Amino acid sequence: MQTKILLQDHQIPKHWYNVAADLSSLPAPILHPGTLAPVQPEDLSGIFPMSLIEQEVSHERWIEIPEEVLKIYQLWRPSPLYRAHRLEAALKTPARIYYKYEGVSPAGSHKPNTAIPQAYYNRMAGIKRLATETGAGQWGCSLALANSYFGLKTTVYMVRVSFDQKPYRKNLMELWGAQVVPSPSRSTAVGRRMLEQSPDTTGSLGMAISEAVEDAASHADTNYALGSVLNHVCLHQTVIGLEAMEQLKIVSDYPDVVIGCCGGGSNLAGLAFPFVRDKMNGKQVRLLAVEPSSCPTLTKGRYAFDYGDTAKLTPITKMYTLGHDFVPPGIHAGGLRYHGASAQVSQLRHEGLIEALALPQNACFEGAILFARTEGIVPAPESSHAIRSAIDEAVKAREEQKECTILFNLSGHGHFDMSSYAAYLGGQLEDYAHPEEHIAASLADLPRVK
Amino acid sequence: MQTKILLQDHQIPKHWYNVAADLSSLPAPILHPGTLAPVQPEDLSGIFPMSLIEQEVSHERWIEIPEEVLKIYQLWRPSPLYRAHRLEAALKTPARIYYKYEGVSPAGSHKPNTAIPQAYYNRMAGIKRLATETGAGQWGCSLALANSYFGLKTTVYMVRVSFDQKPYRKNLMELWGAQVVPSPSRSTAVGRRMLEQSPDTTGSLGMAISEAVEDAASHADTNYALGSVLNHVCLHQTVIGLEAMEQLKIVSDYPDVVIGCCGGGSNLAGLAFPFVRDKMNGKQVRLLAVEPSSCPTLTKGRYAFDYGDTAKLTPITKMYTLGHDFVPPGIHAGGLRYHGASAQVSQLRHEGLIEALALPQNACFEGAILFARTEGIVPAPESSHAIRSAIDEAVKAREEQKECTILFNLSGHGHFDMSSYAAYLGGQLEDYAHPEEHIAASLADLPRVK
Repeated sequence: MQTKILLQDHQIPKHWYNVAADLSSLPAPILHPGTLAPVQPEDLSGIFPMSLIEQEVSHERWIEIPEEVLKIYQLWRPSPLYRAHRLEAALKTPARIYYKYEGVSPAGSHKPNTAIPQAYYNRMAGIKRLATETGAGQWGCSLALANSYFGLKTTVYMVRVSFDQKPYRKNLMELWGAQVVPSPSRSTAVGRRMLEQSPDTTGSLGMAISEAVEDAASHADTNYALGSVLNHVCLHQTVIGLEAMEQLKIVSDYPDVVIGCCGGGSNLAGLAFPFVRDKMNGKQVRLLAVEPSSCPTLTKGRYAFDYGDTAKLTPITKMYTLGHDFVPPGIHAGGLRYHGASAQVSQLRHEGLIEALALPQNACFEGAILFARTEGIVPAPESSHAIRSAIDEAVKAREEQKECTILFNLSGHGHFDMSSYAAYLGGQLEDYAHPEEHIAASLADLPRVK
Repeated sequence: MQTKILLQDHQIPKHWYNVAADLSSLPAPILHPGTLAPVQPEDLSGIFPMSLIEQEVSHERWIEIPEEVLKIYQLWRPSPLYRAHRLEAALKTPARIYYKYEGVSPAGSHKPNTAIPQAYYNRMAGIKRLATETGAGQWGCSLALANSYFGLKTTVYMVRVSFDQKPYRKNLMELWGAQVVPSPSRSTAVGRRMLEQSPDTTGSLGMAISEAVEDAASHADTNYALGSVLNHVCLHQTVIGLEAMEQLKIVSDYPDVVIGCCGGGSNLAGLAFPFVRDKMNGKQVRLLAVEPSSCPTLTKGRYAFDYGDTAKLTPITKMYTLGHDFVPPGIHAGGLRYHGASAQVSQLRHEGLIEALALPQNACFEGAILFARTEGIVPAPESSHAIRSAIDEAVKAREEQKECTILFNLSGHGHFDMSSYAAYLGGQLEDYAHPEEHIAASLADLPRVK
């Protein structure tokens, strides 16, 4: 009875899979936030290296993973695929449940899969420092780790309320050599302006993005790095799904349903995109995005052009969005609090290739506790959305007395989220559901694109 | 260039290795704390199941690992063996450095290797609940995890100062279903007595041990579990070394030196004991115990009979000890703050088969940071002692221009120790060295055994 399905170092995929090669229609153009005209590569070259800009717009199906990136991936990849025997037994389900565990990276989540190549390509382009934003700190940690491997400096603009209340991820970034700045800060013009307007602001991800972009745009040796949403980020994450496919072959299995939690969309994309290709080739496989009901982008948002940030500084992409003004409540799955979603995930959702589902946070924590008490691993609150959905699928299989194969992405561990578990176990978590008029209001301010 | 050396599920050792079979002289008897006469198995049967008591005194070389224990071990074992290519490059050393990574267990350290069989044997004996003590929480978490797998209840007496100041490990224990009680508590007679004497006490490990033992002794369905020091604990940990030997065979290597940090001694024993057998058979291999200079049991203690706890309630064993009254300063490697050591590790040290070394904490954190910035993984402060020593050995190899093979135990990750790293990075950590008279004073109160 095999529990862990392992691959050896040399079995890490040598190429990332680019889903753009298999989309049934061309993606919508990316638009300049000022002119609303399609963005040109040169427009982005002030903050991204050309190699990543090329990947962003590439339609090549397979993109080679550089040798230097593979060497770092080897420190924890291939990540294990687990058969959840003990969870299955607890649920008395005929379903076979597998999970791909990305918490084995030193930063504890899937994020380094893209942080590593981003650091690599930037160093190849002669860049000395990367600036980024972070909320709770998952992405900031991953970039700090990646940059420590490649000898790049890191500046992380961390939302002030997290900087003050969650010192541990800040410590972790510093341990890997990053400079962590509470945002808004006096280091940037946009930060100073925000502080003048409201000196006591607790900050927001939107403000922190603006500061990091300004920092990168105004220093020749500095670029900007983003941890989700963009095409090249989803591309880098496909090592997850490619490995999982190989691992399932070892046990002669294939999923009926592939499940990932979805905020910006990169961990779902990483696991599910390689299966899109199979689906295009006629395979029967459901792909399921699970989001929090407090931020129901794919289930209650509109498929439309919108800005990536509150301040309207980023390019405009066609995606599912709740409106760039939408402010989700402070749920404990901080990584899923984004008003928009990856353009590619959105397009696949729009075309019916990806299903979406929204779940309240108490149900997700309940699933996470059952998981921790059977399988052992303490999941990140974000990943608990995928777990809960996998449990629900397994229960359905039991009720229908039907064998099936469920694969989900355990995108990270919850070692830095213990206060969230304490709040859940203390009965202090609320579930949110947005009234339609709330979402309608934030959707009223979308950019007017023909 | 292989980085991770992995074994498959079915390659977990089927037997633990019992070093008692290969000791060159008989171990000293264990004495009753009241009568000073040798302890009989019956004396211990109120708090331990007979199967573990038998293991405690067994001289059989190989002890079979039960099938049910193997099934749980499979959730994370065999643990990976890493070749530290990036650390080697940073040190420009000709040495090959390998580390066995025990932080892959859900509790984040090697402790579940013994918590799992302890929970198993107690359940087999019809026990419903296990009581234990914990300081910072590593052991309490591991036992809570193990008990959640086997459906046993857990009561953890947690030193009050940690209970109040380190809520995250408490949350983790609760997440796995444990009841966590700040110690001293009103739940036990000994706890009530301590509170009467000093109502504002912050507690101590010695007090917490007394409470857990009383709880176990006074409830027929409840036993006691200990996370280090005892022979059966060291026995269970030998899966570490047995796996490492197989993994090194894959890359055709063999260590010149095997290094583990040493508090009670179980993680060192786990990695090093299987090599004791090779050493007895004529192999050239150094075994190195690294302890904090603030608690230098093996380097400055006396090899003598002493109590395991401050309150003189536990049996008396012959071991290296700083005296049961010795109070080490509050260093950040909480797991290494013990006045005594495993009787078997002590005997091997006394007979010259194990070397010992004491290091100050700042040097260890410096090594941990270098490790985290090259290899990625954030080590537990305890494990940083082994890391620092491995670095020193590698630097010596560089100076002598001599190839050699270094193997150390990375016994756990530091995800719950970020405040310690913050203190180090903030320059707030002090190094301690005990004046001889301090140790001499605490050694004056050893029990008078003929």
